[in-house]
Amino acid sequence: MQADGAKGNWGRWGSEDERGALNLATADVVLETARALRTGKVYSLALPISRSRTPAVWDRPPPERFTRTAPQDHDPSEGSGLPAVGSADDMLVLPSHAGTHLDALSHVFEGEHFYNGHPVGSFSTRRGASKCSIVRTGTVVARGVLLDVAASAGLPALAAGHAITAAELEESCARQDVEVRPGDAVLIRTGWLETLTADPATPSFPQPGIGLDAARWLQRCDVSLVAADNSAVEVLPFDGGRELAVHVELIVHSGIALLEHAFLAELAADSCYVSLLVVGALPVVGATGSPVNPIAIG
Amino acid sequence: MQADGAKGNWGRWGSEDERGALNLATADVVLETARALRTGKVYSLALPISRSRTPAVWDRPPPERFTRTAPQDHDPSEGSGLPAVGSADDMLVLPSHAGTHLDALSHVFEGEHFYNGHPVGSFSTRRGASKCSIVRTGTVVARGVLLDVAASAGLPALAAGHAITAAELEESCARQDVEVRPGDAVLIRTGWLETLTADPATPSFPQPGIGLDAARWLQRCDVSLVAADNSAVEVLPFDGGRELAVHVELIVHSGIALLEHAFLAELAADSCYVSLLVVGALPVVGATGSPVNPIAIG
Amino acid sequence: MQADGAKGNWGRWGSEDERGALNLATADVVLETARALRTGKVYSLALPISRSRTPAVWDRPPPERFTRTAPQDHDPSEGSGLPAVGSADDMLVLPSHAGTHLDALSHVFEGEHFYNGHPVGSFSTRRGASKCSIVRTGTVVARGVLLDVAASAGLPALAAGHAITAAELEESCARQDVEVRPGDAVLIRTGWLETLTADPATPSFPQPGIGLDAARWLQRCDVSLVAADNSAVEVLPFDGGRELAVHVELIVHSGIALLEHAFLAELAADSCYVSLLVVGALPVVGATGSPVNPIAIG
Amino acid sequence: MQADGAKGNWGRWGSEDERGALNLATADVVLETARALRTGKVYSLALPISRSRTPAVWDRPPPERFTRTAPQDHDPSEGSGLPAVGSADDMLVLPSHAGTHLDALSHVFEGEHFYNGHPVGSFSTRRGASKCSIVRTGTVVARGVLLDVAASAGLPALAAGHAITAAELEESCARQDVEVRPGDAVLIRTGWLETLTADPATPSFPQPGIGLDAARWLQRCDVSLVAADNSAVEVLPFDGGRELAVHVELIVHSGIALLEHAFLAELAADSCYVSLLVVGALPVVGATGSPVNPIAIG
Repeated sequence: MQADGAKGNWGRWGSEDERGALNLATADVVLETARALRTGKVYSLALPISRSRTPAVWDRPPPERFTRTAPQDHDPSEGSGLPAVGSADDMLVLPSHAGTHLDALSHVFEGEHFYNGHPVGSFSTRRGASKCSIVRTGTVVARGVLLDVAASAGLPALAAGHAITAAELEESCARQDVEVRPGDAVLIRTGWLETLTADPATPSFPQPGIGLDAARWLQRCDVSLVAADNSAVEVLPFDGGRELAVHVELIVHSGIALLEHAFLAELAADSCYVSLLVVGALPVVGATGSPVNPIAIG
Repeated sequence: MQADGAKGNWGRWGSEDERGALNLATADVVLETARALRTGKVYSLALPISRSRTPAVWDRPPPERFTRTAPQDHDPSEGSGLPAVGSADDMLVLPSHAGTHLDALSHVFEGEHFYNGHPVGSFSTRRGASKCSIVRTGTVVARGVLLDVAASAGLPALAAGHAITAAELEESCARQDVEVRPGDAVLIRTGWLETLTADPATPSFPQPGIGLDAARWLQRCDVSLVAADNSAVEVLPFDGGRELAVHVELIVHSGIALLEHAFLAELAADSCYVSLLVVGALPVVGATGSPVNPIAIG
Repeated sequence: MQADGAKGNWGRWGSEDERGALNLATADVVLETARALRTGKVYSLALPISRSRTPAVWDRPPPERFTRTAPQDHDPSEGSGLPAVGSADDMLVLPSHAGTHLDALSHVFEGEHFYNGHPVGSFSTRRGASKCSIVRTGTVVARGVLLDVAASAGLPALAAGHAITAAELEESCARQDVEVRPGDAVLIRTGWLETLTADPATPSFPQPGIGLDAARWLQRCDVSLVAADNSAVEVLPFDGGRELAVHVELIVHSGIALLEHAFLAELAADSCYVSLLVVGALPVVGATGSPVNPIAIG
Repeated sequence: MQADGAKGNWGRWGSEDERGALNLATADVVLETARALRTGKVYSLALPISRSRTPAVWDRPPPERFTRTAPQDHDPSEGSGLPAVGSADDMLVLPSHAGTHLDALSHVFEGEHFYNGHPVGSFSTRRGASKCSIVRTGTVVARGVLLDVAASAGLPALAAGHAITAAELEESCARQDVEVRPGDAVLIRTGWLETLTADPATPSFPQPGIGLDAARWLQRCDVSLVAADNSAVEVLPFDGGRELAVHVELIVHSGIALLEHAFLAELAADSCYVSLLVVGALPVVGATGSPVNPIAIG
């Protein structure tokens, strides 16, 4: 039994734990998954990053790239008789939570606490998160299980505002003949991102996503990470009108990291339901998340 | 036969190719490597990203993280009777080539051309690289082969300015009993990054790294990518005093992407010489590179 | 006589000059203007700088402010018995040409040249402008003359796309009983910025502004600077369909700096037609312009 | 008499005041100063802004400029038969308190309050300062009085760590035959910035600057602003070892804005002891300060 006020997975991996349910994606799981791969085909689950192609949500600034050095800076006639050579490079100005990105466990808090009871005061504006930063959860390798809920529903995309239920997730498992195991990274396809890509004018609110019922089912399955092809994994508006309801259940109570704006269309098109999912977030000291290029291997 | 002026791998994968030697890391190679894994242990090859912990090279600005929203912004007494919840997030200002990063094939040019003859004029300051941007080479899965040259030499780290030769790479293969195969990502350990980590005052110039002789050996091996635990993969000062000599041979002539500041100490400590290397660079439209968190699975 | 190909004021202040017509705003002019002031009232001609309140033109990113250190970072209970004190500060990410801003003479070129024949090659992406950067023209003190063309026309704002003529400028002078003298900074009120402020949905294209006829009249008057309450000083679309027509005439040919998005409503409301105009642009090395807070003293 | 806990100028200009002692620089003062000018010579008091030329203090990031569009982006052969024209522009990434900059009254707090009792809670990381931001104090016109303390002491620069006293300020007044009047902006020359400019390796700690005795003398004089040619106006280490001692006295208690890294060498060389000082800080919504190019007119 847990102490008073403790939630879900608090204390499960020790009082100092900052990695949460990713502890469930063990080397044994990784090895078994790798050895069972079927095609070796590589899928990038990231959207392109640019001001015009990255979905605008909340009021986060768009990502920007600026050239720091251009090839044209170099003078071919300069210097020696050898061929002129040179380099070009860039500056990136990126919100940590724009485009395809991974939430760290410090991204969301409830009352005075982050996941595992880490105090909100462990975060400062100057230093960022001293507990549960993306450095702790930024390296992910797990069995990836795609649940194509849109396909189960026979739709190109779920309706805006549709709250996916546990029953719908189970139905997807059944239709696809896959099971969700402890330590799995579950990739939930709503079809929303394809709607947006096809029509950039698609409003970002409301959106389909999982509700609390589905979140609790995922907790019971002991998953390590939940990804979805939408902006918040969870349904918008929030289930039951509770601010960040699913984020709180999964991130704060259960230590389950969320991966948003995952592009799942190609996996779905190939019916690649089980993959080795590899996510290497940028280990930015103090950051609450990172843009990522998640890779699924079929 | 190639047209006049064509170099190395130009034209080998078609005149429009922007992916270069990564074409050699096929699904078959990936599948075979995954199935042959031995431990499932996960290694992050990235350095932490922060102003003080990211090596300063050339005159690139240090990476910075700023808080956009802090938990302290939220008033627990505000609103309803439900528990107060909220989120925190960040802004990242990052050079594309700082810390552990992957060079795109547009990072370096020779005369009027990038890799495969793509014209330098395909790059503009405003738009960045329209050919060979990191979007093309940012998703990497390959057999990773660690060549621990420092260990072969019986040193904690090679001497600053030491140019690694083909013979030294072959000696590492022999000592470790591994072979380098077509499509492999070769991870070269000089020990330099550990020197730097132990003593941040270590100058960034000169550094040990590969010379042209080793670069040509890697070309002949048909590797897909070369990583090293130093700032430029190649030796500094440049081999033979030729500006960016190895970059030109590998990136421009051969379409072989380079991964710099790869942290290889843990792989080496475990004698994990063969791994599945997965690199998901940020697909920033127009960028010439990206910071990365490369993941090796043992 | 000027050499072949030389334009307007090229060579007038020496072949190395980078300050252009600001040379005409001499200490004598400043002294005379200061001594003739009538009210001492201080007017800021700058718009507030924020993502939502800065006009979006062309495709420049919006300005952003991020907190670097917040007061909440400091713990009042920390340390000694003295009162707790601390500080807060910010990071600013600003386009050099957003909001109320001053163009440097390197902002626009024609063919191979900037103002005074400085070669386009004096600019590099890495270093920015080595000639005619904002460092050269960023300190402005001149007699400021408001020409309220909207009021002359009896309109709250000129029609979108209206090209102001020399005759209209002269008519404003006559109505206001002011003359434009050599070295003056002329502040042209179209009313557009007030339209935008009243209705942020106002499109930024087309806009009223000066045409080539008015630009040439200003050249003949030997003004030192032209400001307007619109996005480009010049009419949009460009006069005669010539790309940046007025910018080329004034900046490139005549070395007359332009100040855009100047907020002139208060000066106009007070009929303050003559002022001491003081503009302190940020002397950013290499920059082609700077956001400014121009100050007019009545 | 003031209410319990109220400090210095709290309440003097109303309980809602955010402008502080700048209220003392009235239009009458401005008019009188302008009419009494002697030369009309224009002085910029700003340092150049660049990574290498802006003093590094505390741990603020250096300012950076990046090119957004380069002239080389434009193809002269493109399009019509008219002359090719185009433009260049930049992105600026600037700490609000780097280089020559003006502190807003929200820059420093004591206990739970900013100047005038505005609560610390009026600041949020997301929005910045909702009270006393630079928008309120960013437009300054005042009689500027240079007190050349270094010259009074017969030194090129005061010793590092020297705390200037009231007596030294009075001695400078006497030597220069000037008086400090209500509403004046006082410009204090220590010589430190010239030391730094001459030798960039000069440590930024300790530094000469004013102590609490001098700060209280300036308060009694009812000055509107205090500038100095050092990093904090106040002496470093802080007077009496009290954190931000002078900042608290002047900014928090008295509502007197501080201007740091003011370049005063030219004013001093000309013995220009009285000027019209004009400072136009960028009115960035929510910001606690701004880089500035202060202009003094002789």
